[in-house]
Amino acid sequence: MSVISELVAALSPEKVLTDPDVTDSYARDRTFLEPGRPLAVVPAETRQDVVATLRWATEHRVPVVPRGAGSGLAGGATSVEGCVVLTLHRMTAIRELSPADEVAVVEPGVITADLDRAARAHGLMYAPDPSSHEISTIGGNLATNAGGLRCVKYGVTRDSALGLEVVLADGRVLETGRRTVKGVTGYDLTGLFIGSEGTLGVITSATLRLRRAPAVYPATIAAEFTSLRDAAAAVAAIIAAGCQPSLLEMLDRTTLKAIDDWRNIGLEAGTQAMLIAQSDAADGPVVAERMARLCAENGSPFVAVSSSEQEAEELVGVRRLAYQAKERLGKCLVEDVCVPRSALPYMIERIEAIAARHGVLIATVAHAGDGNLHPVFVFDRGLAEPPPQVWAAADEVFREALGMGGTLTGEHGVGLLKRRWLALEAGPVTEEVHHGIKRVFDPLGILNPGKAI
Amino acid sequence: MSVISELVAALSPEKVLTDPDVTDSYARDRTFLEPGRPLAVVPAETRQDVVATLRWATEHRVPVVPRGAGSGLAGGATSVEGCVVLTLHRMTAIRELSPADEVAVVEPGVITADLDRAARAHGLMYAPDPSSHEISTIGGNLATNAGGLRCVKYGVTRDSALGLEVVLADGRVLETGRRTVKGVTGYDLTGLFIGSEGTLGVITSATLRLRRAPAVYPATIAAEFTSLRDAAAAVAAIIAAGCQPSLLEMLDRTTLKAIDDWRNIGLEAGTQAMLIAQSDAADGPVVAERMARLCAENGSPFVAVSSSEQEAEELVGVRRLAYQAKERLGKCLVEDVCVPRSALPYMIERIEAIAARHGVLIATVAHAGDGNLHPVFVFDRGLAEPPPQVWAAADEVFREALGMGGTLTGEHGVGLLKRRWLALEAGPVTEEVHHGIKRVFDPLGILNPGKAI
Repeated sequence: MSVISELVAALSPEKVLTDPDVTDSYARDRTFLEPGRPLAVVPAETRQDVVATLRWATEHRVPVVPRGAGSGLAGGATSVEGCVVLTLHRMTAIRELSPADEVAVVEPGVITADLDRAARAHGLMYAPDPSSHEISTIGGNLATNAGGLRCVKYGVTRDSALGLEVVLADGRVLETGRRTVKGVTGYDLTGLFIGSEGTLGVITSATLRLRRAPAVYPATIAAEFTSLRDAAAAVAAIIAAGCQPSLLEMLDRTTLKAIDDWRNIGLEAGTQAMLIAQSDAADGPVVAERMARLCAENGSPFVAVSSSEQEAEELVGVRRLAYQAKERLGKCLVEDVCVPRSALPYMIERIEAIAARHGVLIATVAHAGDGNLHPVFVFDRGLAEPPPQVWAAADEVFREALGMGGTLTGEHGVGLLKRRWLALEAGPVTEEVHHGIKRVFDPLGILNPGKAI
Repeated sequence: MSVISELVAALSPEKVLTDPDVTDSYARDRTFLEPGRPLAVVPAETRQDVVATLRWATEHRVPVVPRGAGSGLAGGATSVEGCVVLTLHRMTAIRELSPADEVAVVEPGVITADLDRAARAHGLMYAPDPSSHEISTIGGNLATNAGGLRCVKYGVTRDSALGLEVVLADGRVLETGRRTVKGVTGYDLTGLFIGSEGTLGVITSATLRLRRAPAVYPATIAAEFTSLRDAAAAVAAIIAAGCQPSLLEMLDRTTLKAIDDWRNIGLEAGTQAMLIAQSDAADGPVVAERMARLCAENGSPFVAVSSSEQEAEELVGVRRLAYQAKERLGKCLVEDVCVPRSALPYMIERIEAIAARHGVLIATVAHAGDGNLHPVFVFDRGLAEPPPQVWAAADEVFREALGMGGTLTGEHGVGLLKRRWLALEAGPVTEEVHHGIKRVFDPLGILNPGKAI
């Protein structure tokens, strides 16, 4: 019996996809990275499917690339030659949603925004909201420790995860964490899996913390600036004044132009940057006025307080379109550096200088309140991968961020894309420890090989 | 050269304490547990002292018990026979406090409340505040993932830790995490060390997140109840109404009586329980009124809104005295179960029934908003350890909590005290994984042997 027919026997024919046209469509994420050809794709529907696939993979030493929606931006779900892509997107049950405990138990294929909507029906919310929340899955969010727009106030995915059910490489099932908001029995295995990019196990269920949704739509402002530096200074002032925004996003002119060309948002000629800020506090309108004043004091010639929920939602919607708009300009290398908040204005200046020096188009959006910047390096659509000057510019951006006490990746993950810079941030002891931990969970190295560490 | 003289040579004579009167004073934590005799105590003053001690310990296979203030309640710092107690209490520098980045870099011996006070000078706070915060150290808080009164709103120690410097068992130095609020490069090693109770490495520096301190003292209420059940129902109502208290504590009559006997707080005859609640939100006084109304609706005959900061501070001070007051009643076995918030009233009933059935005195305080209960089993001061009926009652409490989806320990840790129940919560796969991770960091098993896992 061939290796694949053994997998079919362990699952069923309709759960082992081998048609190259089909398998190719599960081989890429949203990066330009060229995948290896998968042997097969398994769309798991139950935990048992995952167990059977991993037992088979262990027996035959077949690499397994776990996958959610494929909306990743770092190559974490890019398939490797001869692997099985284990896609969890069909496991979409919200098994439980308890308003009393403010907890949901969900399968990994649940779409992030769907969980949020389900929670809202009970006056709750699921706080983490990556820009891709309408397409991304909870499993992918957990695997990358996804951030989002609201994490400036509510933290990242890890801050909303209480417990996990994980299938290990050999098919054993591990339960981590608990259903309570506190608990210190044993090591923090929940935290260890979150952000491990599918290299330690496959998450088949998650117990997630929900939070009270604000009673009214957050008070929202938008401020235009004639320089990015001014916008970054306004961000620093808003944080320093203790405004505690629930959203604080920055978009540069290149990004705004791309959105304007696509959706006609009425961009002014002199606008070089825009800040969008929200406060969902009880005194949100007061805080919004204070943030508006700080923007004006830091040079914004035009600040608007949204007059309606619809207007505010449209504004935040504009921000969420940023990446898609930039994809219209060319192929994109999306970066994700994060710097200490006070360093934001300096990092912005460095990025502008690096773009000019290398003659590279860099469009930047930022979860500014977190110091998390997404400089997007746009290059010619005809090229298979970024030309040397883009890599050179990206390299400088990474080094600048690390030099300021920052990190290579705030929320997208290392994947394949940032592996070559990993050693700059994680020294040799860290690397030894990473590989030691990897061996505990996956001694044969079959889980998402070549990614993350 | 003897083993100890080699340690003296690696450090200095005044850093290797061997006088039994001195070493005995570093052998216990706040439990009744009888320690093994230490070979020596090393009061480290620098990272290099820690490195030298661990290198020596690795060379000679000597167990090392790391220690902060010895204020632990689970035996995590209880010394083992022939060990070196490595105490970090002299490493008290706050190396940096950056208001712009809302970050502090501190040594492990810093007293928790001292860091909070240093932050307050800049309008910030260090949120985690275990009841012992005036004596506990940051290192101990990190080792146990300490909770506290404010974590109902601000989370536990892990939620305030961004990065660590850790000396591994063989003396290698590992840096984890970062200075930014977000970051996903590599595995979450910061989280792995937090709560690992000194079994994976010795923390010599921590980068901690500070938060904006509320502008005014939190609005504070106290409500008396004629039954614990009513008080627990009020807690559930306060959470369900979305009040988001910044503190929500419950004390039972036995605890209140112990405090009253000591400090005369004017306890009424019919009072069986008290709730103390705070809101530090912008509309705190409004929320406090709402919480007061919910207490009244759930049967409280007497609810008071504090009229001054001083009155409120005294009230919270009373809560912080609970453990010391109970120590006046006899020897204490302090437990720390945590249950889903909705299960709080049921758990309270179970504890009362178990106490009655076994004829055991149980005094309970609870971080009620988290579902985290501290049933304190009081027993005769003449006994070396709890009598069988206390262990039997404790065993039932643990099983009830786990049956409700709860945990053995919300914030104190497993230490030595809860090891015999560990397998009830952490199944065999978890145990294998725990020991696999332990071997990565400490292959010789010299770090705090017999604790936590």
